[in-house]
Amino acid sequence: MLVLSSPSGAGKTTISRMLLEFDDNLTISISATTRPPRPGEVDGEDYFFITKEKFHEMVEKEEFLEHATVFGNSYGTPKKPVEEALTAGRDVLFDMDWQGTQQIYGRVHDDLVRVFILPPSKDELENRLRLRAQDSEDVIMNRMARASDEMGHYNEYDYIVVNVKIGDAVAEVQSILTAERLKKNRRIGLYAFVRALRGLTDEA
Amino acid sequence: MLVLSSPSGAGKTTISRMLLEFDDNLTISISATTRPPRPGEVDGEDYFFITKEKFHEMVEKEEFLEHATVFGNSYGTPKKPVEEALTAGRDVLFDMDWQGTQQIYGRVHDDLVRVFILPPSKDELENRLRLRAQDSEDVIMNRMARASDEMGHYNEYDYIVVNVKIGDAVAEVQSILTAERLKKNRRIGLYAFVRALRGLTDEA
Repeated sequence: MLVLSSPSGAGKTTISRMLLEFDDNLTISISATTRPPRPGEVDGEDYFFITKEKFHEMVEKEEFLEHATVFGNSYGTPKKPVEEALTAGRDVLFDMDWQGTQQIYGRVHDDLVRVFILPPSKDELENRLRLRAQDSEDVIMNRMARASDEMGHYNEYDYIVVNVKIGDAVAEVQSILTAERLKKNRRIGLYAFVRALRGLTDEA
Repeated sequence: MLVLSSPSGAGKTTISRMLLEFDDNLTISISATTRPPRPGEVDGEDYFFITKEKFHEMVEKEEFLEHATVFGNSYGTPKKPVEEALTAGRDVLFDMDWQGTQQIYGRVHDDLVRVFILPPSKDELENRLRLRAQDSEDVIMNRMARASDEMGHYNEYDYIVVNVKIGDAVAEVQSILTAERLKKNRRIGLYAFVRALRGLTDEA
């Protein structure tokens, strides 16, 4: 399981999209939310849009890996699709803030690889936040403050990727995925494979 | 510091050579030995060929990171070039067996990334060992036994790369290098960089 976090404006969503495009073994975890869809958002693609009652029920039944309520809207990561993907031998990508990361890490620990994406500079971050929409100065300053809060948690992650060029950043995250899959403890059947190589069994 | 180990015949030396060719930031550690050069071997390239007296003196002065004596010949990893490369911000590659890896790991611990290369199958390993030279069946069986011993230590390594195709194996080791360089604890100046991003200093 790979979690990507970053302040908004650092390019996390673009990086996620490109990773999924290039890596057939990767599935993205789609969150459930009680907030209404925005124009263009598709149910089951951007989010699972569900009622407050349904959300509450899922919380009660412990069907979320993590969940939180922000400005009156609830968000959660449904367990089932994640477990199904992992059982099928697939890796799961989470696009998530530091709170969600902490909650999931608390549950799965060694199975979670945490990557934090940083913008190349404060000016560049501000530019990217301004480009997003024609918002008032207040809104932009508010976003910068939230970005600063989010970045204060970089220390809770395993890897740091600085997104200078998007292509390089994607390649770096791919290298992290490749390397993590090569870790001894993640290689299923390794013991039997080495025994066979050593001629200690009849296989290989 | 990256150490590659494998039974002979798994392709470690070719992988090392290709890594060095592609990665300008990587230096290989050259061992010192008391054994005489074989035809074609170059002093300071394949090994530093030194006298037994000099070797003994270096052991006394603790100028080796690790050393061992095999069949009457001594081999050691000189500390100085490694320290110089690391100080210059370069990564150091060691081509080394499990004993050497254990000795170095005992000294540097977290700074050492240990990669074990495995052949794709027992038959393939035997083929590669046979190709090497027109040796007697005894010599080949002896080599297979040594390869088996070496492979018994795969569990002391962080990453396992199975060398099916050399190009893929090299790419996998490169991904390991890239990922390890992105680890939070290896990123020098990260604290100051994030502070600047957050607007907590005047830099960035």
